[in-house]
Order: sequence, then C-alpha cells, then structure tokens
Amino acid sequence: MVTLESIQAAANRLKDVIYHSPCPYSLTLSRLCGCDIYCKLDHLQMTGSFKERGARNKLELLPKPLREKGVIAASAGNHALALAYHGQLLGISVVVVMPKWAPLVKVSNCRGFGAEVLLQGESFADAYAIAKKMSAETGRTFIPGFDDPDIIAGAGTMGLEIVEDVPDVDAVVVPVGGGGLLAGVGTAIKALRPTARVIGVESVKAPTLLASMKAGQITRIDTQPTLADGLAVAELGNECFGPIQYSMDDLVMVDEPQVALAILRLMELEKMVVEGAGAVSLAAVMNRPPGLAGKKVVLCLTGGNIDVTVISRIIERGLSYDGRLCRVIVYISDRPGSLAALLTLVAQTEASIKEVSHDRSFGPADVARVKVSVIMETRDLEHIRQIHQALKEKGVEIVDSSHVHQS
Amino acid sequence: MVTLESIQAAANRLKDVIYHSPCPYSLTLSRLCGCDIYCKLDHLQMTGSFKERGARNKLELLPKPLREKGVIAASAGNHALALAYHGQLLGISVVVVMPKWAPLVKVSNCRGFGAEVLLQGESFADAYAIAKKMSAETGRTFIPGFDDPDIIAGAGTMGLEIVEDVPDVDAVVVPVGGGGLLAGVGTAIKALRPTARVIGVESVKAPTLLASMKAGQITRIDTQPTLADGLAVAELGNECFGPIQYSMDDLVMVDEPQVALAILRLMELEKMVVEGAGAVSLAAVMNRPPGLAGKKVVLCLTGGNIDVTVISRIIERGLSYDGRLCRVIVYISDRPGSLAALLTLVAQTEASIKEVSHDRSFGPADVARVKVSVIMETRDLEHIRQIHQALKEKGVEIVDSSHVHQS
Repeated sequence: MVTLESIQAAANRLKDVIYHSPCPYSLTLSRLCGCDIYCKLDHLQMTGSFKERGARNKLELLPKPLREKGVIAASAGNHALALAYHGQLLGISVVVVMPKWAPLVKVSNCRGFGAEVLLQGESFADAYAIAKKMSAETGRTFIPGFDDPDIIAGAGTMGLEIVEDVPDVDAVVVPVGGGGLLAGVGTAIKALRPTARVIGVESVKAPTLLASMKAGQITRIDTQPTLADGLAVAELGNECFGPIQYSMDDLVMVDEPQVALAILRLMELEKMVVEGAGAVSLAAVMNRPPGLAGKKVVLCLTGGNIDVTVISRIIERGLSYDGRLCRVIVYISDRPGSLAALLTLVAQTEASIKEVSHDRSFGPADVARVKVSVIMETRDLEHIRQIHQALKEKGVEIVDSSHVHQS
Repeated sequence: MVTLESIQAAANRLKDVIYHSPCPYSLTLSRLCGCDIYCKLDHLQMTGSFKERGARNKLELLPKPLREKGVIAASAGNHALALAYHGQLLGISVVVVMPKWAPLVKVSNCRGFGAEVLLQGESFADAYAIAKKMSAETGRTFIPGFDDPDIIAGAGTMGLEIVEDVPDVDAVVVPVGGGGLLAGVGTAIKALRPTARVIGVESVKAPTLLASMKAGQITRIDTQPTLADGLAVAELGNECFGPIQYSMDDLVMVDEPQVALAILRLMELEKMVVEGAGAVSLAAVMNRPPGLAGKKVVLCLTGGNIDVTVISRIIERGLSYDGRLCRVIVYISDRPGSLAALLTLVAQTEASIKEVSHDRSFGPADVARVKVSVIMETRDLEHIRQIHQALKEKGVEIVDSSHVHQS
C-alpha cells in the first residue's frame, strides 16, 4: 500500500535520475479556463512520459540476484520505453512483449535503449499473458505498468514536486488509466496539502474508474478506441483503488472532441506536444467544472508520445470542433461560371478556401445541377453561420455542412 | 553599445517579470547530433518568444513622461505580442502597426493584450514607415524590434541564464534575424565563458549576416520566403553588427528541408512546438558541423508561434524529407483487377497506403493504361528503394517518385 513515506523514499531514490520537470504558470490557459493554470510538464521526461518514475523506483528496489536475471513487461507504449531506458542505465536486461500491431517507431525506440522486443499476440491481453508466462519460465521479474505499490510510489513523486513547485495549489488534475498516477499523486497531495482538491479525469470511451466507483469495487469494462489511447485500460489496479477512493474529490469525464481540442490548445497556446492521455487534464478544466474559478490549478501533462502522423488529423479535428475549419456541400447549376460565382460568394465572406471538389457523376438526379464540396478556413462558429446565411440569401442550396467530425 | 554590465542590469530589472526558462538535457537530440544537447526553452515565455526580454527591458527604462505618452512599434509577430503584453502589465499604452495581410490570430492576440492594432501598409517596410511617422506626430516612443542597445541587453539575459543553467557549456547556437539576440547572448557568453563557441545560424533564404560579414559592413539583402519567417530581415541592426563581429565564432547556413526536419524532430523527440526561426539552431547542429562532437551544446529555441494550420504541412514535408512519406506515380492497365494487384504489391512491401488517386482522363495516350498516384507511409529511404525495386520487378512502369517536396 502506497504511503507518504514510501513516496518520499522513492523521491530520494529518484532525485538524481529523474527530471524534476518544470511547472510553469500559463497565462493563456488561465484565460481560457478562468482559473490560474500551472502545467506540470512531465511529458519532458527523457522517454516522454511520467512512467519513468515508477519504472525506475521498481528497478532500484529489485534485489541484486533478481536484477541479474533481468525483467520482463508487456506494453506497447510509455511503460516499455521507461523500462527499457532505465534498465539500460542500471545494466538490467529488459524484455518487452508487444502486440504484433505495435507501432514501428515504438518498437525501434525500445530497441534503441537496448531492450529485447518480442512482437507476439494479437491484443494487449495476449501480450500480457505471454509476458507473464515467460516470466515464470525464465525467472525474469515481471514489472507491471501500474498495479504495484513501488510503481505507484514512484508515480507519486510527481505529487511531491507539485507541492514544492506550487505550494499553495488548490486543485491537482490527474489523468486516469489504470489509476497508478492518481493513487500516488492523490496520496502525496492529501498528506501534504489536504485542502487541495484531487480531480481524476477519464475518457468516456474508457470509464474504468467511473464503473468501479459506481459498483464500489473494481469492475472490468470494455474500452473503445480513443484519442487518449494511453488511458484505455480495462481494469483498475488492485493497489490503486483504495488510495483513489481515499484521496479523489471529483471524477470528470471528457469526450473525444474535448480531447482533440485540448491537444490543439496545448500545441497552439503552450507550444507543447502532448498525447491524448496527457491532454485530458486540460480537457477537463477547459469545460470549467464548478468550484475552480479563480483557483490555482495544476494540470498533470503526463506524456508526449503521440504519432506525428496523427497530429495533422487531430489539428484538423480540433480546428473543425472550434469552427475554424468547415465543409459545406451545395448544389449549383452545371453551367459555366456557376462554380466561379459560388467561390466569389465564399470569398466575400472572408473565408479562406482550402479544397474544392466538384462531383458531376454522382450528383442529384437533375442533370443540370452538380454537387460541390468546399472546405474552408473560418474564424469561428459565428462566421460559419454568416457563411450559411450568405449562401442561402443567394439561393444556393446547402446539402450538408459540417464543422464537427463524427467521433 | 551592449556590455556585460548592461545585460546584468537588465537581468536585475527582469528577474521577477520574465520567466527563467528551463534548459534541460535532451537524450534523444544528443543521440541525433552526436554531442550533449541542452535546449533553452525560451519559446515557453508567456507570449511564446524571447522577444519579451528586450521589450520589457526597454519599457522599464522609459522615463515616466514618455511612458505616459505611450509607445508604438511595427511588427506582425513576436515583438508585437511581447510589447503588447508587457505594456499592459506596466500600464503603458501600446500601438502596433501591422501590414494588412497580418494573420488574424496575431491581430486578435495583440488586441487581447489591450494593444491598439492598426492594419496599414502592404509590406512590413510600409508598416514600419507608418509607425515611425506616427511616432513623430503623436510623441509615442518608437520601440524597435532589435536595433537598440536596451533591446539587445534584454535579449542578452538569455546568455546569463544559459551560463547559470549549464556552467560548463562548450557552444551556444543562436538564430540570427536582425542580430539582436546574437549580439546580446554573444556578449554575455564571451564575458562569462570565453572558451565557449558562439555559433550563429541563418536561413539560406535570408543571409543577412552572411552578406554583411562578407562585405565587412552592414549590407541590405533581398529575403525570400522561408519557414523561418521570423529571420527574414533585410538588414542587420546597426547596434548588433559590432558585438556580433566580436563574439561570433562560426556562422552556419541552413536550408528549407533542414528547417522542416528540425521542426519535426523537435515535435517528435522533444514534444515541443517551435517555429521555424527557433528551430534553425537544431537544424544547424543536426548536420554535425565540425568541432562539436562530444561537446556540451546549448540550442536557443527562441519562439513557438507557428500557425497550427501550417504544422500539418511541415509534418508532411519533414516526413517526406525523412523518407517516411513517399508518392509514386505509375501506369497500370485499365483492366479490372489491375489497381488491386498494384495495391497488393505495395502492401507486400509493408508500406502503409494513405491516398490513392486513379486518373483515367488525363493519363497516357495509350487508352489501355491509366495513371495511378499512390501516397504511402514508409520507414526510410532504404524502404522506398525496396518498393521501387519490387514494383520494377513486377513490370510496373514508374512515371515519377518523390519523397522530397520541392522547396
């Protein structure tokens, strides 16, 4: 069971080997959220996530004979990177089992830290079972991602740093996957700054903690795909639920548009690349949940390992949720000049056209008309409304308009 | 003329009002560059750039009667934001003249800080002339962007922080636009750590300093559009050239592909959104210029104000320069099944298809053949070579293949 003492002991072990990440005030996010926002930039750890804290603490505590036999884990993400990196620093052999579909870049990064990566199993559960079995067969110690008191104590060191960085903090907002970070940070915060509220955040696509809170016991759920993929854990850690029940004041749920917008806001306002699982803390506070107005709020930005090829899509989604990117599909006459007239009309609204497609073959039954799709950059939702009105006033028939992608 | 004393006096004025930005070690960039890389994260200043240092110092030094008359500047970028923000904090009225084409987001951000923004003039030079004229007419003090000893001394405080953050630094890499930052940082570094090399970086599209160094005097150049748009300054500051000649050891030129790749690397490895003008320092060191192997090198990341709608394009360019995105245009037979066969062949090479377009109407003269363009995600340049070979072995005629956009 995690305690303030075990967290402080972990902090002592980690003090020269884990980056005490900065926690600066953000003017722009404060304006956005209506409270004083500080961001704990733990995505700036060497391997891009807070997972190093727990992994390093666990490895430090491993007795010498076990260190010599090496360790094994199942992970397609941040835990694998953290373990590989600190295993290499400590001279401990690391094997990571990843599901076959693991992204190439994560596989090669883990190998870059000297870990042996086995691509086995169709799902994460398969990889997990294989790693457990190999642990029993080879004597390698199995290192869980979150369900372990030493991992939780390591994660909890972020809480100590937050109290040191922002001593008069009023609320700390923590993403929840398996619950390790919340259990550790919650324990630290409640011990050192009991008046501060501890707020957990989950994706509506993976309401693991919500289900367990409702049932009063750990409850397995089916997770759905989410931008916050690092939080898609089917079951809370056994070691995590008690400390969370004790320390958490509120649980906030965020949906996909909110996560996309939060990632966009962090890039645009904070110049930070934060993965979905890390951006949920901003997503929760952007909605202005009750009780935070004017308070000092620390957002835990837990990881930055987002695939750059995904960033473009998230920017586009975020912009469209924001009303800054919009698609309108209209019917126009098939006569020469109709398209030019339409685009002139759009230009007069000051929207900036990004893409036009003109579909003759699959348009309406009326062969004198064609369907045109226009994607444009706009200022905001009000601007989009003005564009609609301008089109309607000129008799343009709008078939469809979307500024929000379907999630 | 800037001196160590004027920089230290500036640091004293700025100590509670400018963020002492962190300067962490980067493991991943160190591996990439073959030396020990530290990043000075000055893009984390409140308005997203180092320009606050000079602007605040200048405003602090303004006598009371002049403060009451307010200030005026011409800028479409970071200087405007910095001045607006610190003017508001100090209760000094700020007018900014921006060219008419200034991005909407910068205009509204400046207005958000209480500045009056005038959109006048077709070019930056026009806006500059208008601001100078208004300064004379209204008594508002004109605040230059870089060509001023107080602005340079403010910028130089970054150099003091670097020596404090990394006392045994061997080299400091500084982007050059008008030369204010290099003049200030160079002066500080040479005074406090004379053995450290001071390296300036310019875009080949705006070789302002290079031209002046060659001529031995300040020389006006024509700048071309560049991703590092913040560096596109036609003429070095009068106050900057002397200190630069005294303190700079090397000048490195970087081209557009290098800037795009550097922005991508900073997003992917450092989780940082850095604008082109700030990323040139990494671009310079990624090329492994002589003499830096194994040394402690500080990169000045000077700003993060990059338009999010531009980020997607830069990611795609960066990926294509990297060999991780590639387009192949081929001819295939117009018979049913040909496209499926082609895509199966591509799939066997393990490339991931992103976009396919199939052009029947404007293909080759031979009507039995159609042109197909396939955009795919690849591992690296070697992977692209393998794909070409696989296609050729099956007799597919490659019309064009590009993994590098034209710059």
